[in-house]
Amino acid sequence: MINKKQILKKRPIGLPGVYTWELQESKVRDLEDGEMLLHQEYISLDPAMRGWINETRSYISPVEVGQVMRAGSVGKIIKTKGKTVFQEGDYVSGWGGVQNYCITKGENFYPVDPKKASLPTYLGVLGMPGMTAYFGITEVGKIKNGDTVLVSGAAGAVGGLVGQIAKIRGCRVIGIAGGKSKCDYLTQNLGFDASIDYKNENVTKSIKNHCPKGIDVFFDNVGGEILDSALIFLRKNARVVICGAISQYNSTENIKGPKNYLSLLVNRASMQGMVVFDYAPMYGKAMSEIAKWIEEKKIFHKEDVYDGIENFRETFLRLFSGDKMGKLILKI
Amino acid sequence: MINKKQILKKRPIGLPGVYTWELQESKVRDLEDGEMLLHQEYISLDPAMRGWINETRSYISPVEVGQVMRAGSVGKIIKTKGKTVFQEGDYVSGWGGVQNYCITKGENFYPVDPKKASLPTYLGVLGMPGMTAYFGITEVGKIKNGDTVLVSGAAGAVGGLVGQIAKIRGCRVIGIAGGKSKCDYLTQNLGFDASIDYKNENVTKSIKNHCPKGIDVFFDNVGGEILDSALIFLRKNARVVICGAISQYNSTENIKGPKNYLSLLVNRASMQGMVVFDYAPMYGKAMSEIAKWIEEKKIFHKEDVYDGIENFRETFLRLFSGDKMGKLILKI
Repeated sequence: MINKKQILKKRPIGLPGVYTWELQESKVRDLEDGEMLLHQEYISLDPAMRGWINETRSYISPVEVGQVMRAGSVGKIIKTKGKTVFQEGDYVSGWGGVQNYCITKGENFYPVDPKKASLPTYLGVLGMPGMTAYFGITEVGKIKNGDTVLVSGAAGAVGGLVGQIAKIRGCRVIGIAGGKSKCDYLTQNLGFDASIDYKNENVTKSIKNHCPKGIDVFFDNVGGEILDSALIFLRKNARVVICGAISQYNSTENIKGPKNYLSLLVNRASMQGMVVFDYAPMYGKAMSEIAKWIEEKKIFHKEDVYDGIENFRETFLRLFSGDKMGKLILKI
Repeated sequence: MINKKQILKKRPIGLPGVYTWELQESKVRDLEDGEMLLHQEYISLDPAMRGWINETRSYISPVEVGQVMRAGSVGKIIKTKGKTVFQEGDYVSGWGGVQNYCITKGENFYPVDPKKASLPTYLGVLGMPGMTAYFGITEVGKIKNGDTVLVSGAAGAVGGLVGQIAKIRGCRVIGIAGGKSKCDYLTQNLGFDASIDYKNENVTKSIKNHCPKGIDVFFDNVGGEILDSALIFLRKNARVVICGAISQYNSTENIKGPKNYLSLLVNRASMQGMVVFDYAPMYGKAMSEIAKWIEEKKIFHKEDVYDGIENFRETFLRLFSGDKMGKLILKI
C-alpha cells in the first residue's frame, strides 16, 4: 500500500512556489499495537497554514523541512491492531496532514458522523473554521443584539459563519469581499444586510455609507488597508477581533501596521487576538449549536472542493488569490 | 483688573510655532448672579493638549481658533456674586484655561484643600494624570500580583505613577525614558525594578534582557517604534494599554502604525484605548487611595514648575523635547 504525501521542502519567501513542497511516495508500514491506519478522504486548506511553514514559532511550532505538511483532515479507519481508541469503519477528523494515509494512536482525532453531515462539513462549519467563527464573534467580539458588525474576508469559511451567527444574535451585518459574485453570495445566500466589494469600491466610503452610526464589532481576517479603514469608524467601546491578516501573510516586506490604531484610544475600543485552540474544551457545545442551526436552515454553508493531492499547492494558492467560494477543501 | 490669556490663533502643522497662540489682555468683566471670579495660580501642561488644537473632533471637541487655550488649572475664588457653588477663599481645580482669571459658575470645578497637599499636586498625582494612571493600570491594564509591567514615558506624570501603583500591587516594573538622569530617577526615586534609556540603548534588546519571560502589561504613552518593540515580547493574554502616543502627536506625516500588531493574535493579547473622563464617577475613590499612599510615603511625586503665562508655548514644548522631569506645570 503506497502513501502519497506533500513534504515541506524549502521555506518560501512570499507566496509558496514550486519548490516549497514535494510530492513523495512511500510504502505504508505495518501497524504496531494500539495503532490505527486512517484513509484520509479530504484535507482542509486554511490561510493559517501559510504561517506554519515560516521558521519562527508562532502559537504552534512550525512544520519542519522534511516533514509532511500539517493540515486538518477527515477520513475512515481502515485497519487497527490490538486495543485502539477507534474501530475499523469509524470516521474521524483531526490533524492527519497532506497525505493519503496516516498512522495514529488517536491523539488529536475525534469521531465524526457521516450520516449527520457530509465529510467536508466537518472541515468547515463543523470544524476549525466553524469553531474559530463561533468563539471569535461570541467570546472575543462579545456581540449583542443591535450591534453593527463588519466582517472582512466575509465570503471565506470563517467570515461567512461569523456574519450568520451575528445575524442570528440580532446584529446588523456588513461583509467585505472581493468581486460581485462573492458580494452577491453574502447578501443572497448568507443573509448579510449589505456587502462591500473591495476590488471595485472605495472601502472607506462604503463603510461610511453602510455603517452611518459606526461599527460595534469588526471581525478581521484580512489586515492591511481594510483594517485601517474599519478603525476609522469604531464606535465607543467597539471590539476589533484579530482573527487573521491574509493580506499580509505572503508579504516579503514588513507587515503593514494599522496607522489608525489611535482610534482605539479615542473610542475606548479594544483590539484582541484569538487562537481557536484555546476554546477546545468548549468545542462540543459550539458544534451542537451550529449543527442545530444547520438543521433549522438558519445557516447556509458551502464547501469548494478540489481534487487530487498532486494539486495541493495550486489549490492552496486560491486562498490568497481569492479564487474560491466558501470553505476550500482538497479531496485526496 | 486685567486678564492675560493665551488665545489659539492658528492651528499648527507639526510642533506648535510662534503663530499658534497669541498672548492677549482684556479687562475682567463684572460678575453676574451665581458667578465666581477665580484667580488661577497654576495650569497643567499635558501631551493631550496637542490633540485638542487639531481641527478634528476626538474624544473632546477641539479648541476653536480665537478661544482661550484649554488647560487644567488650580486657583482661589477671590470674588462671588449672589448665591454661588463655592465661596470667597475656596481653592478649586478644573478647566480654567491658560489665563490669569476665569469667571465660572462652578461647572467642571471641584474643591481642593491646600493644607493636605500643595496646589501643583492637584494637577499631578491628585489630578488628571493621577486619575489616568490609576484607572489605566488597574481597570484597563488589570494588573495582578506577579505581573511584569513595562511603561513607556515612565518619567512623565502618568508613567511615573503607573509604575509606582504597579509596584504597590506586587508587579515587577520596567520603565522606558530618555536619558540617564530620567532613568536614574525611575530606579532611585520611584522604585522601578529597572529602566531602559531609549536615547542610548537598543530598546528591543533591553526589553528582552529585562523581561526574559515577556510582558504581561504594556502601558504606552509614546507609540511609534517603542510600541512595536514592546509588542514583540507580549506574553499570552497580555494587555496593552493605549494611553497616548506622544511620539506621533506632532507628526506631519501619517501616524506610524504598529507593524507587530499580529503579536496580539499569536498571544491572544488585547490592546485597548482609554480616556480618563469615563472614570469620573470613581475619581473620589482613586484620589483618596492615592492621597493615602502619599501619606504613607509609598508614592513619590515631583512637579516641574515653570513660571510666567508669557512662557506658555516654550514650556509646553518641553513635553515633546523631553526636557522636564515629572509633572510639567506653569505658574501664572
